[in-house]
Amino acid sequence: MPPTRFSAAEYAAGVLAGNRVALSRAITLVESTLPSDQALAQQVLQTVLPHTGRALRLGITGVPGVGKSTFIEALGLHVVEQLGKKLAVLAVDPSSPRGGGSILGDKTRMPQLAAHAHAFIRPSPSSGSLGGVARATREALLLCEAAGHEVIFVETVGVGQSETTVHGLVDFFLLLMLAGAGDELQGLKRGIMEMADALLITKADQGNETAARRARREYQNALHLFPPAASGWYPPVLLTSAVAGTGIAEVWEMLENYQAQTQANGFWQERRRQQQLQWLHQSIRQALESRFYGEPGVRERLPAIQQAVAAGEMTPFAAAQELLGL
Amino acid sequence: MPPTRFSAAEYAAGVLAGNRVALSRAITLVESTLPSDQALAQQVLQTVLPHTGRALRLGITGVPGVGKSTFIEALGLHVVEQLGKKLAVLAVDPSSPRGGGSILGDKTRMPQLAAHAHAFIRPSPSSGSLGGVARATREALLLCEAAGHEVIFVETVGVGQSETTVHGLVDFFLLLMLAGAGDELQGLKRGIMEMADALLITKADQGNETAARRARREYQNALHLFPPAASGWYPPVLLTSAVAGTGIAEVWEMLENYQAQTQANGFWQERRRQQQLQWLHQSIRQALESRFYGEPGVRERLPAIQQAVAAGEMTPFAAAQELLGL
Repeated sequence: MPPTRFSAAEYAAGVLAGNRVALSRAITLVESTLPSDQALAQQVLQTVLPHTGRALRLGITGVPGVGKSTFIEALGLHVVEQLGKKLAVLAVDPSSPRGGGSILGDKTRMPQLAAHAHAFIRPSPSSGSLGGVARATREALLLCEAAGHEVIFVETVGVGQSETTVHGLVDFFLLLMLAGAGDELQGLKRGIMEMADALLITKADQGNETAARRARREYQNALHLFPPAASGWYPPVLLTSAVAGTGIAEVWEMLENYQAQTQANGFWQERRRQQQLQWLHQSIRQALESRFYGEPGVRERLPAIQQAVAAGEMTPFAAAQELLGL
Repeated sequence: MPPTRFSAAEYAAGVLAGNRVALSRAITLVESTLPSDQALAQQVLQTVLPHTGRALRLGITGVPGVGKSTFIEALGLHVVEQLGKKLAVLAVDPSSPRGGGSILGDKTRMPQLAAHAHAFIRPSPSSGSLGGVARATREALLLCEAAGHEVIFVETVGVGQSETTVHGLVDFFLLLMLAGAGDELQGLKRGIMEMADALLITKADQGNETAARRARREYQNALHLFPPAASGWYPPVLLTSAVAGTGIAEVWEMLENYQAQTQANGFWQERRRQQQLQWLHQSIRQALESRFYGEPGVRERLPAIQQAVAAGEMTPFAAAQELLGL
């Protein structure tokens, strides 16, 4: 028996009432690649859109082993328990197979948070291209806002293309680093440090404090050498210890300072405006490219042409002309 | 009277013979936006293509005032006089009006080099989008190689989008910096430091040596905090003084070391392969987008739709769907 199909109005009403089951099902709908589901999803989104945009959207990235789950559980509990706010945790990880658990694949990674009534945790959509996953995550974020979640974490692994995507989704981009000299950079993508609004050194635990403080000083010096950001914000380097339970309140305080400063100078609003427009043009580009590369003539000729171009036997422009003429 | 129009074979023969007038005219041809010129240009390029790819391609960037002209003249004279090699200097600067002189607008910026028989200096094409200028520069580079130039400098101002373009054109990307604390970063684009294969601190002149050495140490420390590059190369920080005439031979020696190391580990060849493929797909993307955004229906609706998206009244995906349906 197929699952009951709700109308757009029913989905929207359930989401706006903060019903977790409705929210989950609406997210499943935006993740669907079926054209009929997508059309319905857009109707739901259009209905809830006036009720979105009010959350603080925080991107969190770092290589595996840096302690992302532990940090998210600690900051998340601070948000729901100390601040009494509703939190949603989303993930962007196109490489993760369903249930594979490489990132938020199951809720046992953050058991206390997952059990809390004010926290909503959703694993990464498992299907599709990065573009598709990114769109689904962006729309899931809007649905969570419509459902009354005041803080959204978007988690990603800092090793691929996905952190650029997440950077385009959030108000603040936090990079988690280990204190060990050199090792922490293994696997981290070049360019990611300059995207960070703050660095957080994890596992600054007893016995590791000296290394953590040295790492903080080094990163702080390095960040000062970067060109200043348009926001007027200087990315700080913070320390946290899950063992000692320290540094979490400071992270939240920093986020509030950032929000106050950039809302006052208009950067916060402008960043969101720019993100919206970037998403529009990226959606168009993806659709144009997906149509083009899907054409039978192009699919057939492309491998030989790519080989000729890579070997320097054909100029890229001439090759493009040939493909565009098919 | 219109200028004499050569055949593709005549252009190619002149270029391959190393005739400077033929090279200049062939570059003018690839810069032309007329469809008939572009078709002819592609024939010329296809003919000379087997004779390209042998030069060392060096990208040079830095903010205005950093001393790019002085450095290019000094390194260029080293190449043509000490090493006896043929050099071509190209520029990518879409913002420069013809003859405006903001970058290579006239040859008085590097008078000795411009007068040398083994140096060929070509200002940035003045017309068109960054995409068009980038294509023209890439094709001019191939023509210069076919004309026997063994070293190519591609110069750009490090303040816009063009340095990413140049990075995709060259084997080695050199970022020029001033030693002054903080000031040197004004106007420099975020992310550019992580693209650099080396940093060169200019104006390390007498009286300024302490600041220059301190800057070198700071940048070297900062670069060590970046994730290692796929090339296995660690970007060094060098000093140069035009006044004292120091540091130029060291830059060349570094380039040779880089070439030897990355040709041995295969990265040099792989970078060029990847660049070729990127240019193919960028050319296709530009053509698809230029067709799409040029459609009358899209042109008419786009402003209102962008406004609705930026204001959060319409999801980017729904907006894209509407435009794609026009």
